[in-house]
Amino acid sequence: VRPAVFTGPPRPPSDVVARLGEHGVATVHEARGRLGLLGTDLRPVWPGARTAGSAVTALCPPGDNLTVHLAIEQTGPGDLLVITTTSPCSDGYIGELIATSLNARGVTGLVTTTGLRDVRDITAARFPAWSRSISAQGTAKDAVGQVNCPVMIADTVIRPGDVIVADDDGVACVPREAVTEVLTACDEWAAREASAREQLRDGALTLDVFNLRPLVHRLDVQHLPWSDSGYLMP
Amino acid sequence: VRPAVFTGPPRPPSDVVARLGEHGVATVHEARGRLGLLGTDLRPVWPGARTAGSAVTALCPPGDNLTVHLAIEQTGPGDLLVITTTSPCSDGYIGELIATSLNARGVTGLVTTTGLRDVRDITAARFPAWSRSISAQGTAKDAVGQVNCPVMIADTVIRPGDVIVADDDGVACVPREAVTEVLTACDEWAAREASAREQLRDGALTLDVFNLRPLVHRLDVQHLPWSDSGYLMP
Amino acid sequence: VRPAVFTGPPRPPSDVVARLGEHGVATVHEARGRLGLLGTDLRPVWPGARTAGSAVTALCPPGDNLTVHLAIEQTGPGDLLVITTTSPCSDGYIGELIATSLNARGVTGLVTTTGLRDVRDITAARFPAWSRSISAQGTAKDAVGQVNCPVMIADTVIRPGDVIVADDDGVACVPREAVTEVLTACDEWAAREASAREQLRDGALTLDVFNLRPLVHRLDVQHLPWSDSGYLMP
Amino acid sequence: VRPAVFTGPPRPPSDVVARLGEHGVATVHEARGRLGLLGTDLRPVWPGARTAGSAVTALCPPGDNLTVHLAIEQTGPGDLLVITTTSPCSDGYIGELIATSLNARGVTGLVTTTGLRDVRDITAARFPAWSRSISAQGTAKDAVGQVNCPVMIADTVIRPGDVIVADDDGVACVPREAVTEVLTACDEWAAREASAREQLRDGALTLDVFNLRPLVHRLDVQHLPWSDSGYLMP
Amino acid sequence: VRPAVFTGPPRPPSDVVARLGEHGVATVHEARGRLGLLGTDLRPVWPGARTAGSAVTALCPPGDNLTVHLAIEQTGPGDLLVITTTSPCSDGYIGELIATSLNARGVTGLVTTTGLRDVRDITAARFPAWSRSISAQGTAKDAVGQVNCPVMIADTVIRPGDVIVADDDGVACVPREAVTEVLTACDEWAAREASAREQLRDGALTLDVFNLRPLVHRLDVQHLPWSDSGYLMP
Amino acid sequence: VRPAVFTGPPRPPSDVVARLGEHGVATVHEARGRLGLLGTDLRPVWPGARTAGSAVTALCPPGDNLTVHLAIEQTGPGDLLVITTTSPCSDGYIGELIATSLNARGVTGLVTTTGLRDVRDITAARFPAWSRSISAQGTAKDAVGQVNCPVMIADTVIRPGDVIVADDDGVACVPREAVTEVLTACDEWAAREASAREQLRDGALTLDVFNLRPLVHRLDVQHLPWSDSGYLMP
Repeated sequence: VRPAVFTGPPRPPSDVVARLGEHGVATVHEARGRLGLLGTDLRPVWPGARTAGSAVTALCPPGDNLTVHLAIEQTGPGDLLVITTTSPCSDGYIGELIATSLNARGVTGLVTTTGLRDVRDITAARFPAWSRSISAQGTAKDAVGQVNCPVMIADTVIRPGDVIVADDDGVACVPREAVTEVLTACDEWAAREASAREQLRDGALTLDVFNLRPLVHRLDVQHLPWSDSGYLMP
Repeated sequence: VRPAVFTGPPRPPSDVVARLGEHGVATVHEARGRLGLLGTDLRPVWPGARTAGSAVTALCPPGDNLTVHLAIEQTGPGDLLVITTTSPCSDGYIGELIATSLNARGVTGLVTTTGLRDVRDITAARFPAWSRSISAQGTAKDAVGQVNCPVMIADTVIRPGDVIVADDDGVACVPREAVTEVLTACDEWAAREASAREQLRDGALTLDVFNLRPLVHRLDVQHLPWSDSGYLMP
Repeated sequence: VRPAVFTGPPRPPSDVVARLGEHGVATVHEARGRLGLLGTDLRPVWPGARTAGSAVTALCPPGDNLTVHLAIEQTGPGDLLVITTTSPCSDGYIGELIATSLNARGVTGLVTTTGLRDVRDITAARFPAWSRSISAQGTAKDAVGQVNCPVMIADTVIRPGDVIVADDDGVACVPREAVTEVLTACDEWAAREASAREQLRDGALTLDVFNLRPLVHRLDVQHLPWSDSGYLMP
Repeated sequence: VRPAVFTGPPRPPSDVVARLGEHGVATVHEARGRLGLLGTDLRPVWPGARTAGSAVTALCPPGDNLTVHLAIEQTGPGDLLVITTTSPCSDGYIGELIATSLNARGVTGLVTTTGLRDVRDITAARFPAWSRSISAQGTAKDAVGQVNCPVMIADTVIRPGDVIVADDDGVACVPREAVTEVLTACDEWAAREASAREQLRDGALTLDVFNLRPLVHRLDVQHLPWSDSGYLMP
Repeated sequence: VRPAVFTGPPRPPSDVVARLGEHGVATVHEARGRLGLLGTDLRPVWPGARTAGSAVTALCPPGDNLTVHLAIEQTGPGDLLVITTTSPCSDGYIGELIATSLNARGVTGLVTTTGLRDVRDITAARFPAWSRSISAQGTAKDAVGQVNCPVMIADTVIRPGDVIVADDDGVACVPREAVTEVLTACDEWAAREASAREQLRDGALTLDVFNLRPLVHRLDVQHLPWSDSGYLMP
Repeated sequence: VRPAVFTGPPRPPSDVVARLGEHGVATVHEARGRLGLLGTDLRPVWPGARTAGSAVTALCPPGDNLTVHLAIEQTGPGDLLVITTTSPCSDGYIGELIATSLNARGVTGLVTTTGLRDVRDITAARFPAWSRSISAQGTAKDAVGQVNCPVMIADTVIRPGDVIVADDDGVACVPREAVTEVLTACDEWAAREASAREQLRDGALTLDVFNLRPLVHRLDVQHLPWSDSGYLMP
C-alpha cells in the first residue's frame, strides 16, 4: 500500500446522520436488509456510549499509529474516525490525548479494530469509542498507510463519507448513497416496533403480534404434554 | 430433531426458587457439590443483574429464533427462559420486544447461548438477561426445534422445571428433584461463611479459620528466608 | 516445583508505590520504555478499579488454591497479591472471603490469571481485583506450589517486591530496582502530556504538537483529492 | 467428587462395535438422528486414525493424571479410554508409556479432552488417539476423580459401555442401548449413499438425486442472468 | 437476502487460471500488491492440496446447505466452489457425495468457511478442499441464500469469475479483471526469486541479495559484542 | 527498544545439543523439572520434524521482518533461529528463500511465534520449522528490533546460546548453563522409561510399575461395582 492521504471526501447531511444515530444499531441493521454490521467484537469503552458520524478512515500498519495522526487532520465536526490495520493488531493506538484532539475538532466518535488505552480518562470525558481490545501497549511511528481509502471490518466495506452508527449493540455502516432510503426504512421499522411493543406490554403473544401461527402450522409443529421420559438424551 | 412443544412441565415451589436466587451462583454451586455451573462465557447484559426461575427451554436451529416465539407461549410467572441452538450461533436471537413480552408475562429472566441485542433498552428495563455475545444480527423464522426438551449448556443438562440461578458470577442449574436439599445445604454453607467472614474481618488467617495448617504440615511445605538468587528462572 | 514459602522479601518505599499508582498503567508502561505490561486479558472486576502495591506472589497447581492461603499469611499493608498457575486454569481461586481477609490485612489489591467469583460482593466492597475470567467453579486443596517465587504473566517476570500498578487499562509491573527511575520518567512524561493536552484542547494538531510533519515528509506521503474510483478494492 | 472406581460396567457386543467403526463418524452421527458428536476440537494425533470401542471413562482433576492409571486397570480388549477433567486442562495427560500399556491390554484407542505428548512414538505405533491439544507439559499425581462414571464432552453424555466411534472427522458416541438400532440405520444410510454416489459419478445432480427441486420451487428461488451491477455490496 | 441464483457469470481464460495456480498463494499475493488473501484459518483438508479455479459462489444461511446444491448446478469444468454463510457456522456443509459430484463436473476444488466432513474419503480421492473446521454435524435444507452473488471472506470480496488460488499456505483471490496483469507480475516475481535462491544457496546473505544494508545503515542499527548483563529483562 | 545486534554469543557444545535433540521435547521438559516448554501453539510445519540447536534470537516489530535479515548474518552451523515480536503478529515472516539461506548456513531449524509461508517448499526441503500460524501475508522492512537479546515465549526466557529442542510435541528451551546437567537427567529418565516400557509391553500395570498403589490407598479411593443408577448427573 502506497502512503497516501485522500482529502475532501463527500459527507452525508448531518441531520440524517443524527437521526440514524437515534435509531441505533439494531434498527439500522434491520432497515438496511441485515447488512452492514461490523461483527460482534467491537465493544464500547464505556456502557451506554451511543453516536453516529460520517466516516473518516485510517488504514495503518500493525503496531504503528502514525497514520492516525494524519487522519486527525482530515476530520471535522460530525466526522467519526474509523481505524483498522493491514494485519491484526491489539496495540493501544488511541489514548486520551488523541481523544481530546478529536473532541476538540467536533468529531463524534471513534471505532478501532486495534486496542485502546486511557479508558478511565476517555470514560470520564464521555468520548464515544469502540475497540476490539483494551491495551496500554504503545505504538511506533515509522510508517504510513492510507487515510480515507475504503477499509474493511468484519467483511463490510467502509468508505469515507459512509455513515457509522454505534451503540451498546456494536457498530453498523450505512453506505452514503443509501442514507435517506435507510432512514425511511428505520422510521417505518420503529413505528411497527412501537405498535408491537404496546401490544406485548398488554400481554399479547409475539406469535399473534407478528402473525407467526400460520407458519408454525405449516411446519407441522406438534404440541405434546410433557413427561419425564419422553426424550432421547443427546 | 422433530419440531415439538412439550407443555405443562413441573415447576418447583416458587419460595424455594427465590431463596436459591438470594444465595447466588457461587453458594448454590458449592452446595450442589460443585455441579451445575453453565461455564464461564454466559455474562450478564448489565452488571448487578441477579435472578432465579424455573427453566422453560428452547432448542433452536442456528440463525432462526422461531422456536423462541413458541417458547414464550409456554412461559408464566416465575419461569426463566433458557435458549440454546443445535449448532453454535452468535446471532441476536433476543431483543427488547421479546424482553418486553417476557416481562409482561412475569418471566424472571433469560439465559441464551446465542447473541442478544437492544442492550440499552434491556438494561434500562432492568430485565435480567445472560448471553454469550452481543450481536445486532437478525435471525430467520424458517424452522422450529423443540420447546421444553432437555438442553445442554457447558456439559450440564437443563430440563424444564429445573431451577436456574444467575448473577454476576454466571449461571447455575439445580435439578428440580434436588432443590430442597440444595437449599438446606446453601443455608448451612452461608452460615459457615458468615462465621468465617467475621473472624477474617478481625484479622484471623484463612489457614486457621479453615483449619488448613495440618494439611500444610502433611505436605511438607518449607518456609525459607527470601533471597534474590534462590530461584531457577523458568 | 517443590512446595515452598519464601518469607521476608524486600519491599519498595510505600510513597513511591502510591505515586506510581496515581500515574496509572499507560504512563508507567511508557516511562519504563514500553516494558512490563501483563497482556490484554487481565480485566478489572469492577470498572474504575485502580491501585498499586508491592507484589507478593503465589504459583499454584491448576485447580488448587491452597497456595493462596499460604500466601495470605505473607501479606501485609501495601502488598498486592499476584496469583498464577503452573498450567492455565480458569477456576474461581478467589472469592469474597479471601478478599475480606486481604482487605483486613491492608493488602491493596489482587491480580490473578485464574478465575474469580463473588463479583457482586467484591464490587460492593470496592476491593481492587483483576482476573482473566469470572468463574464460580471451586478449587481443591490437595497440593502446594510456591509463595514469593518469581512468576511469569504474559512474558513478564514478577518477583516479590516488584511494584504492580493496575487500572482500567490492565496491569503493569515495575522491577523494584527501577522504581525511583521509573517514577521520575513518569513525572516527566505526565508533564509533557499535560502541555500537549492544553494545546490539543485549543485545537492544535498532534502532527504539530508532536512534531510529526518532518517524518511524514521523509516518508513521502502524498495528499490527493478524494475520488470514488481511485482505489483498488481488497 | 468423591474418589471412586466403578468396576464391571456392561459392554456392547464386539462385532456390533466393529461394524459401527467401519461406518465411521459421519454415518453414525446421521444414523443416530444427528446426536452424539463430541464437538469439532477433538483431533486425531495422526491422519487416517480410525477406531471404535466400548467406553471406559476417567474424570480427572485438572493437571493430575492419577485417575488415568486407575482407569487402565479397568480396561480390557475392545475398550476405548475416554478421559476428561473437572475443569478445562491442556496438559499432557497421556504419553507413549500409557499408550504402550493400553495397546498391550487390547484397548482399541483413546480420546482425551486434555493434551497428549509423545506424538512421534504414538504415531509410529499407530495407536489410535484423539485429543484437544498436543502438550509435553507433565501432570501431578496428587488426587483422584472417578473411573467409569458418566462424563460429558461437548454437551454429550458418555457412560461406560457406550460405543465410541472415531476417525478423521472427529469422535461420536452411541448409547449402549441403541447400538443395534443405530447399526441398522447406518446400514440403510450407507446403502442409500452408495446408490447416490453412483448416480453422482455418472453426472447426475444432487438436486435430482435427493429430489430437492420441489423444495426449491416452494421456496420461490429465482434464477436470473448474472450482471456485474446487480448486487448490493455488504 | 432474497433467494436467488445468478446464472452465466464471466469466466477467466483457463490457461491463465492454471498458470496462477502453479505460482501458488504466496507469489500471487505478492504479485497482487499484498491483497486478496482469505485469512489464516482456511486450511487444506489434506497436506499438499493445490489448485486454482474460477469462483462459483454460494452464500448460505447458517446450518443449511440447500444453497450448495443449487450452486453445484451452476458449476462446470475449471470452476471452484466458494461457500460462505450469513452468520458464522462450523457445521459440515460438504461431504464426499458433494465432492464426488463436483469432481464429476470437472470442478477443480472447494473452499468453505464452514466445516466439512468425510475427510478420509475426500483425502483418498485427492479432491482439493479447504475449510475452517472439520465437523460431521449435518445441515438442514429449509432455506436458500444466493448463488453467484459477491461474497466476503476475511475482508476480501469474491465475485463469480474471480480466480481462486489455494495451496498449503491458504487461499487467495484475484479479481477477474486483473488476472493477466497479476500473472505477468507473478512471472517477474518468480524470476527474481529464482535468481535470489541461487545466490542464497551459494551462501550469499539476504542483506546483500535484497540490498538491505543501506536501509539498515539509515536506521542506525548498532552492532555490539554480546555480554550476559547487557539487557533489561522485560 | 533501541535497534541493536549483539554479536558473538556463547554456544553450548554441539554434541550435547545433538544428544538433547535425540531425547526430544517431552523428556527434556521432564528432565528440566518441568520447566522450559514454549506453550502448546508452536506447531511443526511438517509432521515428524525434529531438531535441536543453539538459539540465535530476533525480536521484531509487528508486521516487519527486517530484523530477521540481520539475524541471519549472526547464524552459523548448529544454530537455531528463534523469532518473536514486540506485539502479537500472524504475518508470514519466513518463506522458502529465508529457509534456503538458513539451510545453506548450517542452521538446524527455525521457531517463530509469527506466521510462516511457502509450506510446500519448506516441507519438500525437510527444513525443520515451527510456527504459531501459516500465513502468506507479506511483511514490511521499515524498522529494526534486536538480534541476540533475550526473548520471551510462553513465559519462558530464551537467551542466545540456550538450547532449543523441537519435535512433534512442540518446543522446549534449556538454559546454556544447565545443558550438561539436563542431559544427564535425560539419560536417567530415558533409562527408567525403557525399563517401564518393557514391563508395560508384557502386561504390567502402570499402578505397579510406577508404584502408585500406596498413594491410591492413602487417598482412600473406593472400588464399587458399577450400576446404572449410581451417579448424580452433572
